Amino acid sequence: MNDNGKQGDSGKPRILIIGGVAGGASCATRLRRLSESAEITIFERGPYVSFANCGLPYYVGDVIADEKKLLVATPGLFRKRFNIDVRTQNEVLSIDRHSQEITIKNRKTGAVYNEGYDALVFSPGSSPIRPPLPGIELPGIFTLRTIPDSRQIREWIAQRGVERALIVGGGFIGLEMAENLVKRGVSVTIVEMLSQVMPTLDADMAVPIHNHLIANGVTLALGDAVSSFTEGPGGNIIEVATKSGHKYTADMVILAIGVRPEIGLAREAGLEIGERGGVRVDEHMRTSDQHIWAVGDAVEVQDFITGSWINVPLAGPANREGRIAADNILGRKVKFRGVQATAICQVFDMTIASTGTSEKVLKRSLKSGQSIPYEKVFLHTRHHVEYYPNSTPMTIKLIFSTTDGRILGAQAVGGEGVDKRIDVISMAIQRNSTVFDLEQCELCYAPQFGAAKDPVNIAGMIAANALRGDAPVAHWENADLDGSIILDVREPGEFDTGHVPRAINIPLGELRGRLGELDRNRQVLVYCAVGQRSYYASRLLLQHGIQAKNISGGFSCYAVWKQIQSDSH
Amino acid sequence: MNDNGKQGDSGKPRILIIGGVAGGASCATRLRRLSESAEITIFERGPYVSFANCGLPYYVGDVIADEKKLLVATPGLFRKRFNIDVRTQNEVLSIDRHSQEITIKNRKTGAVYNEGYDALVFSPGSSPIRPPLPGIELPGIFTLRTIPDSRQIREWIAQRGVERALIVGGGFIGLEMAENLVKRGVSVTIVEMLSQVMPTLDADMAVPIHNHLIANGVTLALGDAVSSFTEGPGGNIIEVATKSGHKYTADMVILAIGVRPEIGLAREAGLEIGERGGVRVDEHMRTSDQHIWAVGDAVEVQDFITGSWINVPLAGPANREGRIAADNILGRKVKFRGVQATAICQVFDMTIASTGTSEKVLKRSLKSGQSIPYEKVFLHTRHHVEYYPNSTPMTIKLIFSTTDGRILGAQAVGGEGVDKRIDVISMAIQRNSTVFDLEQCELCYAPQFGAAKDPVNIAGMIAANALRGDAPVAHWENADLDGSIILDVREPGEFDTGHVPRAINIPLGELRGRLGELDRNRQVLVYCAVGQRSYYASRLLLQHGIQAKNISGGFSCYAVWKQIQSDSH
Repeated sequence: MNDNGKQGDSGKPRILIIGGVAGGASCATRLRRLSESAEITIFERGPYVSFANCGLPYYVGDVIADEKKLLVATPGLFRKRFNIDVRTQNEVLSIDRHSQEITIKNRKTGAVYNEGYDALVFSPGSSPIRPPLPGIELPGIFTLRTIPDSRQIREWIAQRGVERALIVGGGFIGLEMAENLVKRGVSVTIVEMLSQVMPTLDADMAVPIHNHLIANGVTLALGDAVSSFTEGPGGNIIEVATKSGHKYTADMVILAIGVRPEIGLAREAGLEIGERGGVRVDEHMRTSDQHIWAVGDAVEVQDFITGSWINVPLAGPANREGRIAADNILGRKVKFRGVQATAICQVFDMTIASTGTSEKVLKRSLKSGQSIPYEKVFLHTRHHVEYYPNSTPMTIKLIFSTTDGRILGAQAVGGEGVDKRIDVISMAIQRNSTVFDLEQCELCYAPQFGAAKDPVNIAGMIAANALRGDAPVAHWENADLDGSIILDVREPGEFDTGHVPRAINIPLGELRGRLGELDRNRQVLVYCAVGQRSYYASRLLLQHGIQAKNISGGFSCYAVWKQIQSDSH
Repeated sequence: MNDNGKQGDSGKPRILIIGGVAGGASCATRLRRLSESAEITIFERGPYVSFANCGLPYYVGDVIADEKKLLVATPGLFRKRFNIDVRTQNEVLSIDRHSQEITIKNRKTGAVYNEGYDALVFSPGSSPIRPPLPGIELPGIFTLRTIPDSRQIREWIAQRGVERALIVGGGFIGLEMAENLVKRGVSVTIVEMLSQVMPTLDADMAVPIHNHLIANGVTLALGDAVSSFTEGPGGNIIEVATKSGHKYTADMVILAIGVRPEIGLAREAGLEIGERGGVRVDEHMRTSDQHIWAVGDAVEVQDFITGSWINVPLAGPANREGRIAADNILGRKVKFRGVQATAICQVFDMTIASTGTSEKVLKRSLKSGQSIPYEKVFLHTRHHVEYYPNSTPMTIKLIFSTTDGRILGAQAVGGEGVDKRIDVISMAIQRNSTVFDLEQCELCYAPQFGAAKDPVNIAGMIAANALRGDAPVAHWENADLDGSIILDVREPGEFDTGHVPRAINIPLGELRGRLGELDRNRQVLVYCAVGQRSYYASRLLLQHGIQAKNISGGFSCYAVWKQIQSDSH
């Protein structure tokens, strides 16, 4: 289709859209804004289009009290406002690429019919993974993807008086469901196969989340997996056995293991499927068939940082992809820039956010030979100046290229203001910025909102200091702890409450006068509580000709590192 | 000085710093981190260095209860941790550039002495403006710049039982003081010479602030100025007369008219002073004397957007300038990138933030011939999706170049999340981004934090749609309201509660069927409540060959425009 859509077109292109939630709905309305003449039809298997699936856990938790609030737009609105034909409960059965037709089953009437297209948009989303475990079909085992799912969970809780729930999976949905169930008075256990929750984060950033979940009464079973479900003695009770041999009893199970792209129709139609199991599209969101575009959870897209293919089941990218597909269908050559995987999750009083790539992904690339040399730094700070009341703690991990300082990714956990810092860094990444740009950026400062040097500036400064060689950093997990002097520059009172084995204590304020106590032929690894005083100390030592490295994140990171070690034993 | 500071140096450069608050303190500690051998001395006229002047209004308001919290660093800490000699209550009397010496008076002992320098850092800050009005020296008339200032105000409130305060000036300090005094039960009047508060913002963005101040019980006297102060009958009472002939009675007056760079010493020493009354520095923060650097409120710097010289008395830039001066003093050729003037202020439940340049500045440049062609768009939205409880309203004004889409500035007022959006746009500006980058940026989304299309994305989309010609925008103040059809596409119920004179009402959902009612030879200006439905309508009309423009910000902006007109009459 070559109509640029700017002035409308003379033909009446027929555009069919399979799936009407985030990407499909976004594509449809953009199509209409670009072309009044296109005939646009959305086929949605479920009963609703354009609903707020990110709100479902909060509907279960009664935070969102009215189900109707989840309906962002109705078929009636699509019809009236956009002249778009929305057919809910109409399931597409097959795609005939040769004749450019799809076959649809009307689930209300049972009728099967065909529709032809000039352009087809494939946007069926993804489906929650239900592993083929014994007992997986027992009543009381739920997934959460649709409004009816959430309604069933609510009804089950109400009717069965659920007291104990087991959540399988510690990702976004798992954590959000944990919070919402606890708020409803349910006792929650999370079983997670990995040794950490929130698998998009690195292990070192997941530790504070583990502690926060436990502090809020959630039982965590990490590094374990469900092996079977059986009906318990009470009839309503489910007994859950795990591979490690544990048994749990629950009144309800939520499967939150993840989602799988819904590619059945695409595969049957012979569209190219990518290495990550999603429909492969080009930068215009066009599939291997020139008349078919695909968007949302069902496609795989390129990682903005690494260029590798990834599945990112997130609403933001789905919406952008839908918009870009619409542009290209109507002849505008707009490119999708790839996905940074910016994501956020709140669980109890903790906000968890990340953008760009993680250290674990970079390590995997290292193994596969497509490596990006990187370094990381940690910042433990507060969301605004401490002198103003109610500042909350925040930890930022910043990952950057050692070649040119380009920002590769950031992760943050804490209370308020976590979203802001990750959004700022996300914008920086979008513009291929470096840690030197973070040093210089000029952010809002009043005492309630930040600091004259915002955490984003400070993270950039720590990274830039490392890159320039002014303050090389070391990390607990790979520093030469045996061969080096370990210098703790905190005050003696802090040192006495806990320190690293073999560390010697010279408080920062005494260091200039006590340099003679250090063996000048050995490397000194300096740490303090969080890394600031040790930074000052490392500068001091380096200028006196002593080889020093600052252990990023200090004793706070040491505690995390020890916890990771003990968790994995 | 050519020492690059990386490995320390063999000489012992003597570096003297005049003024030890934000810029000076930041410069001093950076110098030490770069050079262990430098002799660094700070001369501070007042009793404190490195104090939190941004916290002073909150100390007056009892939000910060303990005065000690305002002391970020003490002379003892500077000495012990950084080997920096801090001399408080030591006032520099003169600079002898020829002999590279300064003359200092010890205000405690009265002794006058000289110190020589290799490098001098001029960082005296600014002083509050006290206009030479009759009665200006009466007791009870305060400025707020130092800890002793805030202490005196607190004492006056406590001892005199202040019930009515008059604040002269509606900028940052004026508004923050208004809030803090109201919270202490004081009845507050603000007299502001301009027709708006927060002069860094455009008039259209100040209107909601006016309404919020009034809603919180503050009396606003805009477009008026104090002409005299006289002692009232009660002895403690001050009578304030204004140019318009009004009289106010107050128990206390706060002068918050602004600050003036403290350049007396610099002028006497013959340093170049710029057109804005600040010390002129190059991009390395060096003055016209190669041995003297200057930072903070006393200098003028280049506007990041327009390149023109500006005074920006803000803590963030002062800190960065101090750091950059230190780098350059020690031989590192680091450039200051200029100032975006990112700023934020909270007043009651409203957050006000801005970055980059304003429309009024761009209009002034237009007059001076150095014009940047620009357009603006308004977004009235909420800080997160409406389906999640407690979303708060937010208005964003985005200003951008019509030449290339470069973002020139943004202003936002609202509740939560205003700081985040301005910070993201600030980062975008720092990287010379365009509105097309805002369209594409990938920000955090969960229901508590934003939307799948964040307000920043939407603002970028509105602007990009205008630039591409997809949805040209018009504005109430310069649209051809008389010659055009004014089309209100809201629902009849909304139309009936108030609309623009001569507007015709065709709800968006009926527009396709009622196109025949429009005279196709006339331009149609479309509006709705905030601009979204009218955007859809303008696309529809354009595709049907009808010349249409969307009035940005819709009826909300109309109400603001009418209020500006009535305020200025």
